[in-house]
Amino acid sequence: MKEKVTVVKVGGAVVEDEAQLAQLLKDFSAIEGRKVLVHGGGRRATKVAGELGIETKMVDGRRITDAAMLDVVTMVYGGLVNKHVVALLQSQGVDAVGLTGADGDVIRSVKRPLKNGIDYGFVGDVKKADGAKIARFIEAGLVPVIAPLTHDGEGHILNTNADTMASETAKALAGQYDVTLVFSFEKKGVLSNPDDDDSVIPVITRPDFERYKADGTISGGMLPKIENALAAVEAGVKEVIITLATALDGKSGTRIRGER
Amino acid sequence: MKEKVTVVKVGGAVVEDEAQLAQLLKDFSAIEGRKVLVHGGGRRATKVAGELGIETKMVDGRRITDAAMLDVVTMVYGGLVNKHVVALLQSQGVDAVGLTGADGDVIRSVKRPLKNGIDYGFVGDVKKADGAKIARFIEAGLVPVIAPLTHDGEGHILNTNADTMASETAKALAGQYDVTLVFSFEKKGVLSNPDDDDSVIPVITRPDFERYKADGTISGGMLPKIENALAAVEAGVKEVIITLATALDGKSGTRIRGER
Repeated sequence: MKEKVTVVKVGGAVVEDEAQLAQLLKDFSAIEGRKVLVHGGGRRATKVAGELGIETKMVDGRRITDAAMLDVVTMVYGGLVNKHVVALLQSQGVDAVGLTGADGDVIRSVKRPLKNGIDYGFVGDVKKADGAKIARFIEAGLVPVIAPLTHDGEGHILNTNADTMASETAKALAGQYDVTLVFSFEKKGVLSNPDDDDSVIPVITRPDFERYKADGTISGGMLPKIENALAAVEAGVKEVIITLATALDGKSGTRIRGER
Repeated sequence: MKEKVTVVKVGGAVVEDEAQLAQLLKDFSAIEGRKVLVHGGGRRATKVAGELGIETKMVDGRRITDAAMLDVVTMVYGGLVNKHVVALLQSQGVDAVGLTGADGDVIRSVKRPLKNGIDYGFVGDVKKADGAKIARFIEAGLVPVIAPLTHDGEGHILNTNADTMASETAKALAGQYDVTLVFSFEKKGVLSNPDDDDSVIPVITRPDFERYKADGTISGGMLPKIENALAAVEAGVKEVIITLATALDGKSGTRIRGER
């Protein structure tokens, strides 16, 4: 019987709202057993960049990361946001340790090559999330708080999408642990009717997804999110839950499951 | 026989000069056995603060840390400088992990009360550096890279002097390890003649120090530095070495020793 690990991804919108963050961390603290928090911080990075006179450029929701922007995200994700979250968790008795992919060499990436002629700059595509290296921290009784930064093994920090960091961390840990991956979200879950916040689909398997996709129930930005969740499940993660940041109780939200 | 740990303090001037930093990290990588790096970053913090339109105020060499400046030092020390050093060490095969006092609860502090009517703001005086908690990382095969930030256990990050962080870390580890503390410095060591860079005093014990102090050989800013080093030795640190950042070979510099 494998030990259970819960990996929770929380986005920038929640991390940067003190009231929502306090609630999220209270719920996170209450999760029993081993756990990992992966956070974003994009809004704060955009704000700090603006204060420094650095323009934020996004393509398809992804940040173009030139050298000046890399400094900003390293400061904001690795310093400001990460240490704030770690200190708050410590104050609630959670023995948190802030990590980027470089710390303990837990997640390596390669600088993204040009895609469709677009140079994303210092953005890293994950090459290897190392479950055994992450587990060293977990088994020492620590709770990793992972910032969306990786390294290339050649001395460079790279900016990496936080959803990807969370999925890769969950998949890397799946060999050793019974992993639940929770994506906190601005809705109660995946909705069957976008106009009805309570129309949460409780469970989605691969055949369900194909059906919802074919009949248009699920469309747009939810498609890659669920595809990504199904890929995690198919790579050994037990369950992916998409739920409100204020509903980490393990009962709410949409559960993405394998067909077992 | 206790295992040996070398704690190296490197100041902001070295950390922020890529050529000097590369040399320092090469020398640090070559130190055998368990080790810890404690870094500063004040010059970069002053630069980033200036770019953000935040004025840097110093009193007796210490930074007045209001809320805006606390964000700056958290970003610069905990993010920019720390992650840069960690990534560079990883590229040299050193399994570094960046820590502030909040990470793993390794160093707690209390917000400094008014001193002589001066409000230093969000500055933390170390209450407890926890040797056992730092040792968890060391015994997992990791090399802690410590930024000069602590936490108060109530959710707040505080700005703490890097020399103090290094001394407190060395003292905290002295119960469990045979600790050498190295302060990298802009001179070859403590000089008997300030006009002669080669007049390095090889060894200073407490009686030597009292004699040099009385006859004026040692004066000014070196007095608190050596007092601090002697206090570390008297608290169980085996030896304190004051040496050039480019001379971490363990042979150069001034050695502050007990009378054993």
